Amino acid sequence: MSISKSQIKLITSLQQKKYRLKESLFVVEGIKVVDEFLKSDFELNSLFCTEDVKECYFGSNPEIITEIELKKISGLKSPNKVLALFKIPKETRIDQLLGLKVMLDDINDPGNLGTIIRLCDWFGVKEIICSKNTVDCYNSKVVQSTMGSLTRVNIKYVDLMSYIEQTSQPLFIADMEGENVYNSKLPSDGIVIMGNEANGVSNDIKKIVTHKLTIPRYGEIQATESLNVATATAILLNEFRRNIFIEKLS
Amino acid sequence: MSISKSQIKLITSLQQKKYRLKESLFVVEGIKVVDEFLKSDFELNSLFCTEDVKECYFGSNPEIITEIELKKISGLKSPNKVLALFKIPKETRIDQLLGLKVMLDDINDPGNLGTIIRLCDWFGVKEIICSKNTVDCYNSKVVQSTMGSLTRVNIKYVDLMSYIEQTSQPLFIADMEGENVYNSKLPSDGIVIMGNEANGVSNDIKKIVTHKLTIPRYGEIQATESLNVATATAILLNEFRRNIFIEKLS
Repeated sequence: MSISKSQIKLITSLQQKKYRLKESLFVVEGIKVVDEFLKSDFELNSLFCTEDVKECYFGSNPEIITEIELKKISGLKSPNKVLALFKIPKETRIDQLLGLKVMLDDINDPGNLGTIIRLCDWFGVKEIICSKNTVDCYNSKVVQSTMGSLTRVNIKYVDLMSYIEQTSQPLFIADMEGENVYNSKLPSDGIVIMGNEANGVSNDIKKIVTHKLTIPRYGEIQATESLNVATATAILLNEFRRNIFIEKLS
Repeated sequence: MSISKSQIKLITSLQQKKYRLKESLFVVEGIKVVDEFLKSDFELNSLFCTEDVKECYFGSNPEIITEIELKKISGLKSPNKVLALFKIPKETRIDQLLGLKVMLDDINDPGNLGTIIRLCDWFGVKEIICSKNTVDCYNSKVVQSTMGSLTRVNIKYVDLMSYIEQTSQPLFIADMEGENVYNSKLPSDGIVIMGNEANGVSNDIKKIVTHKLTIPRYGEIQATESLNVATATAILLNEFRRNIFIEKLS
């Protein structure tokens, strides 16, 4: 049995957001990442794999395809034996009222979003609140770079200002004119807001945040003027979690 | 005057490492990044810009080209008015014996190397020691993503084992079986070693490192098994610099 032309057309169309939305499907590739999604709550739609690994997907009703067919449907330079379609879940998960959250104000780069999702998973952040213009989390570059973390972090796309108006959680941004993060007492409950790669956090949001945190630059004044958004997120989340750890010790 | 075919051929060839080495030249693009390099110690070879910005490069003997010509020589999707060739400096800078350094064991991804260079600049790390198989720092994707930090951080490519044999600095790696980095007293002098994206630090090096540090994972056991190498570097360098800051306070 081989893959049909209409299947190929469907799968390659899912590289584009509008077709992902239309079909409510997204693509996952590679043995490791597909395994993470199979173990998760995501609902499998269909799975294609090469003959040599078919035993691994016995329970998933695999369609066996050739390496050449896999190459046709894959978005990767080096396809890796398996490609699966999963359903995009409906946004029904209930908002968490408390806990540490990350808010993304127009993050453009799929690699940055993927890295931030992985970071949130590492640091136990359960929810990422994205502006409508933030890159789609079911974009294949995001899916592949999260290494399965997407299965454990709840991501929603909302109007940020409306969301902010309704929350009572403290709001944090990184800012060069803020409080030194090494000296700050950080709570276990709050929203860390990270801004667009080129423009930072939008002015409307900047005006209403309750806390500004500075990651100190070390050494000469002429040094780089900013950190990449994903590395700044890494440092801030590490500081929030370190506070909890140190508190437990004392 | 317009750009010659041989100039176009030379400039586009510099996208490849072997031609960069042969010509000892690399490409820098865009107003902001070119400005950083012009202000640095790097030696300008030639500069091409569009008519509308020629006044800005009065002192750099610019060759005026059209948008269409710029598109021919640019490696960017959206070329930005200026492209310059700079000389690759000879490795004559003297090794620093002390201070915080970063060592990279076969980092493959240009974006990761660019991010790490920017981080080193931010945190005042003056020297990055790369294995011979680490991606070339004059790769155009690295140059563009460093945002000029490349001008302030000394990068060398060496045999790591020989280098390690000759140093007396303490050696640190990130490892899940190490000491909790939140509890560790970190020195201002040492080498932080980061490994390949897929395989981590090589076993030969792992055997001889003096310190293993763990970035604690927060929450459930099923979380992501590793952090991206650039974000792990961000967190570790932040911890080293935080130690110095806190020490000064007390």
